[in-house]
Amino acid sequence: MQAQKSLYSYRIEPQEVDFTLRATIPALGSAVLNTAGTDAHGKGFGVDALNADNHSWVLSRIAFEFDSRPAQYADYTVATWISDYGRVLSTRNFVLSDAEGHEFGRAVSQWAMIDLASRAAVDLSWVGDAHADAIVDVPPPAAMPRKIRAVEPSVVCEHKVVYSDIDFNRHVNTMRYIEMMLDMLPVERLTSEAPVRLDVHFLRECRLGQTLTVGAEFRDEGALFEIGSGEGAVAVRAAVEWK
Amino acid sequence: MQAQKSLYSYRIEPQEVDFTLRATIPALGSAVLNTAGTDAHGKGFGVDALNADNHSWVLSRIAFEFDSRPAQYADYTVATWISDYGRVLSTRNFVLSDAEGHEFGRAVSQWAMIDLASRAAVDLSWVGDAHADAIVDVPPPAAMPRKIRAVEPSVVCEHKVVYSDIDFNRHVNTMRYIEMMLDMLPVERLTSEAPVRLDVHFLRECRLGQTLTVGAEFRDEGALFEIGSGEGAVAVRAAVEWK
Repeated sequence: MQAQKSLYSYRIEPQEVDFTLRATIPALGSAVLNTAGTDAHGKGFGVDALNADNHSWVLSRIAFEFDSRPAQYADYTVATWISDYGRVLSTRNFVLSDAEGHEFGRAVSQWAMIDLASRAAVDLSWVGDAHADAIVDVPPPAAMPRKIRAVEPSVVCEHKVVYSDIDFNRHVNTMRYIEMMLDMLPVERLTSEAPVRLDVHFLRECRLGQTLTVGAEFRDEGALFEIGSGEGAVAVRAAVEWK
Repeated sequence: MQAQKSLYSYRIEPQEVDFTLRATIPALGSAVLNTAGTDAHGKGFGVDALNADNHSWVLSRIAFEFDSRPAQYADYTVATWISDYGRVLSTRNFVLSDAEGHEFGRAVSQWAMIDLASRAAVDLSWVGDAHADAIVDVPPPAAMPRKIRAVEPSVVCEHKVVYSDIDFNRHVNTMRYIEMMLDMLPVERLTSEAPVRLDVHFLRECRLGQTLTVGAEFRDEGALFEIGSGEGAVAVRAAVEWK
């Protein structure tokens, strides 16, 4: 039987909107990541199942595109499917649609599997074999996440990692990184109605108690970001662009 | 017809747990506040309906009690009811129960209605009359939120208010205040299995761009907190205690 995209339903809750009464970029991003976790869990290869084998999924890169941000209480769906298992990275895709079925956003993510003891990447070939029936033969709905090269920040701020930043792995959670970076932009930018694309590249995990530097290089229609975790180590790079 | 408590169903999602794989206090608190918003919205006196009359609900005080923190993917329900409309404050109550119906938490909140132009409190008597049928004659499930007197912080840190801190009213959102305060405690405390009670008193709204001071006075089995918004103004006071 040919695998199908899986559909998950959500509603924009009051705590997910900004003062324009539309969902924030991190709120939509959080729904996308939540969908990935729920879908993997439901299909038997979620983090909880992998942990039993001392393995875990780690997000390597993700690109989000939001053409518009839905209003408070709007119902929407996220369709998700895995299009490919490479040796190192698997590709999971997302399409966001409003209650009328109109597509308003999409995301493409690439995940590695690591061994929790060695923190090294695990060859994914066996997963591709074991879960071949979970692969849907539909290409990613947007350009693959872009590689982001050196960033030249004009503004840098510090962030000490606290309890509310960390996830079940004791690492800073993905959406907190995105919030830290976007928070460096003017509010007028973040509340704009223009379509936006956000590419994020995760290079190194950050831990409780570390002091991070968050640098921003401003461009005409967006910005580049780099989060450092000390002594020149780059933890995250990202690029955001409004159309 | 006698009004009944309203029931809302939730599940502990992966992004809501810490490394003990149980829901964080802010995650449970967020579900409680989300329930308040959803219930008021559904009954026609939510913030969205009030805004049409240039009014809004403002949370004045809240007390949470969590006997335990449910595990990832656990289903639970939040029952909510309004027990009283005073002239200035209405009382909304919450009981959290696990899938077997066992109560593991409760909350009592007091809300004022403000005029958005003057930011002054509105006499609630008319709401009590108009929505008398929404009152459920069941007393609050826990002691009312406590008044918290002067706090003598031994540690103070600063927090600049950014976009991801603010809500649809352009004020710092309730759960962010709670996160800022709890983040000053040792992680061993926050991940403890002991029953916890948290009382929070909101005195003044904080806005984008303000630099807040977060002070903590540590006690044997908990702490007192005070958030200041400059020049001696106190924005929030809180007390947390583990049993």
